[in-house]
Amino acid sequence: MADAKYDVLGIGNAIFDVLVRTDEAFLSRHGMARGSMALIDEARAGAIYQDMGPATEMSGGSAANTIVGVANFGARAAYVGKIKDDQIGRLYAHDIRAAGVAFETMPATDGPATGCSYILVTPDGERTMNTYLGAAQDLTPADIDEAQIAASRIVYLEGYLWDPASAKQAFVKAATIAHGAGRQVALTLSDSFCVDRYRDEFLELMRKGTVDLVFANEAELRSLYQTADFDSALKQFRVDAKLGVVTRSEKGCVVAAKDGVTAVPAFPIEQLVDTTGAGDLFAAGFMFGLVRDAGYENAGRLGALAAAEVIQHIGARPQTSLKELAQQNGLPV
Amino acid sequence: MADAKYDVLGIGNAIFDVLVRTDEAFLSRHGMARGSMALIDEARAGAIYQDMGPATEMSGGSAANTIVGVANFGARAAYVGKIKDDQIGRLYAHDIRAAGVAFETMPATDGPATGCSYILVTPDGERTMNTYLGAAQDLTPADIDEAQIAASRIVYLEGYLWDPASAKQAFVKAATIAHGAGRQVALTLSDSFCVDRYRDEFLELMRKGTVDLVFANEAELRSLYQTADFDSALKQFRVDAKLGVVTRSEKGCVVAAKDGVTAVPAFPIEQLVDTTGAGDLFAAGFMFGLVRDAGYENAGRLGALAAAEVIQHIGARPQTSLKELAQQNGLPV
Repeated sequence: MADAKYDVLGIGNAIFDVLVRTDEAFLSRHGMARGSMALIDEARAGAIYQDMGPATEMSGGSAANTIVGVANFGARAAYVGKIKDDQIGRLYAHDIRAAGVAFETMPATDGPATGCSYILVTPDGERTMNTYLGAAQDLTPADIDEAQIAASRIVYLEGYLWDPASAKQAFVKAATIAHGAGRQVALTLSDSFCVDRYRDEFLELMRKGTVDLVFANEAELRSLYQTADFDSALKQFRVDAKLGVVTRSEKGCVVAAKDGVTAVPAFPIEQLVDTTGAGDLFAAGFMFGLVRDAGYENAGRLGALAAAEVIQHIGARPQTSLKELAQQNGLPV
Repeated sequence: MADAKYDVLGIGNAIFDVLVRTDEAFLSRHGMARGSMALIDEARAGAIYQDMGPATEMSGGSAANTIVGVANFGARAAYVGKIKDDQIGRLYAHDIRAAGVAFETMPATDGPATGCSYILVTPDGERTMNTYLGAAQDLTPADIDEAQIAASRIVYLEGYLWDPASAKQAFVKAATIAHGAGRQVALTLSDSFCVDRYRDEFLELMRKGTVDLVFANEAELRSLYQTADFDSALKQFRVDAKLGVVTRSEKGCVVAAKDGVTAVPAFPIEQLVDTTGAGDLFAAGFMFGLVRDAGYENAGRLGALAAAEVIQHIGARPQTSLKELAQQNGLPV
């Protein structure tokens, strides 16, 4: 196997976040499912935005947040995602490159604008996302560079890629190249409603071995196996996934390997401000631990640390050095 | 005098803020004057942005921040400023309207993009701004609506308006209409370098009575009178301005009226995060106090309270209800 150029390469929907603090009444008024990600069209985007308060904007996108986290820990990271060459797309490209991530996907020059998500943060810190995919709809297999994928130790894919028309073909192409080069493929199940839309396909990806490592939170795991019983879902997950990691909010995470289950506690926080990016940054820390050969327990701790950082401020990108934070907490970097 | 429709109407350069935490070395490397606002052209904007870390974006602009603060306190507020009808301009228009501010200035359909400022926040919380005026350069007297100005109790203008080519004509037109309708005109001196560029003109505005109320911080006051001695500068300020207010950071503020000087302490804070908007929000609270006839001391306290809120988080727009904050602190609303 050739030396890797990147530790982790992520592929996902490139989304600009428009974040606003709001109340529960806003969610009810707009018929939003609390804590979920809903896809919206331009008309609904307009209606929601019209009614939203003043916002803070920053680059987002689930896999992109993860990859920025990986780079922030000090690993070599790359991202593949489709923006348009518009004002917001240029902010997006700047932010991810400035975070130290290689980002070479050709932006669209026509078609829909760079995608965005209206993220409503309620007083309890929960985020409810409304995503207009925009240019992210136009990610295709042509955006997958074979040499770049083959040169990445872990290729990380988001379940949200099943939503755009041709991104799943890009996904499968990338996974095939990665495995051909002896690399690992990781998948996040993204969202329980997303699992509900693509349950059979996600299960097939796991059972056929298209993906090696799968991240899920409790709601996604329950949705995957259509059960309310965590233990039985976890049991099935261990059968289907080569390596599964289940995040459980304040209960920490469970690393489900074939040869055993490791529970890792959550990292203590002072104040929960905004859960946006919690799962994304957990995955960043966990994969960083894997590429550093730190063992599952330390990988889980690194994930918990990164998640704890991101939920204590608005927005899904780290605001401090995760590398320094890990060092301060005696974790391997 | 007819009933007013607005308590405060602000006129300023409409600027989208691109905020990033950085270190002192970045400022040195780019030859920036710490704590100042520098005007930059497109080439320099590109060079600075290229070198900047991942950012958080939000709507800004000095007078706009003030007006959003006035609305947030619960007063009736309007804003006049030039954006372009582009993606960033649309974010801008949304944010100010969503804050409860009337904003009817026709956006430019061609010419430069909506203006933006690269704001570098150093570890001590100080902000250094680099502003590309963009569409704000195209504010003209035609953007001043006579009826709207005449219906506003206070017309608030920023010294930064002296930078674009024709905005000062808009400024003078607005001041003339306001006085013709028996309204008050307020001016902020904006920045010590701005004072240095337009010292004589600012002094003339005060001495001729074009402006009734003048906001300055210590550095601006010293620049205005080209002296390091605060007391002698204040003495001259009392002669020149009908009513002057000097903000002094952690030393609070001084309200300099013809019949006496009132010192008001700063509001205590837990942690200084980012001084962006401190002066803007002070002016918001002070003018809110004036329109509520709360007296200079309470006006100063309301200003101090609003400034304290805004310097404890990233960005120049309030993130909590200033009205509730004032009520909690026993101040008149």
